[in-house]
Amino acid sequence: MKARIHVTLKDGVLDPQGRAIHHALEGLGFGGVEDVRAGRLIELTLADGTSDDDIDAMCRKLLANMVIENYRVELV
Amino acid sequence: MKARIHVTLKDGVLDPQGRAIHHALEGLGFGGVEDVRAGRLIELTLADGTSDDDIDAMCRKLLANMVIENYRVELV
Repeated sequence: MKARIHVTLKDGVLDPQGRAIHHALEGLGFGGVEDVRAGRLIELTLADGTSDDDIDAMCRKLLANMVIENYRVELV
Repeated sequence: MKARIHVTLKDGVLDPQGRAIHHALEGLGFGGVEDVRAGRLIELTLADGTSDDDIDAMCRKLLANMVIENYRVELV
């Protein structure tokens, strides 16, 4: 089984990487970009039967920094 | 409108970040993890009416390195 973990910064947390991307898009002439937020995507290939609780524990302990980030698990 | 861009390494491209995460998960005692691939997630807030072609152009010119990465656009 596969799980995709989407890790994104919480609202209100400064995102310098997103700002740099935003600035670069404008520099390339792309108008109409109002905001850019950068995050991480982690694709896990897991043994069948890995429980949702295990995946949650992986996210909380290692994959996301719960102080400033949210995560979302998508099973594929 | 919002667009989520999923940027992932192409198959066969070495992924040291994914390997480090894999190693760390094993070190924390999580068994059953077979593979880990790390990628990027970029959330764009766009003016209404931004065309799919524009979004594709942003990805090809800046957001993804087409030599080693694939991207997928998800409109939200």
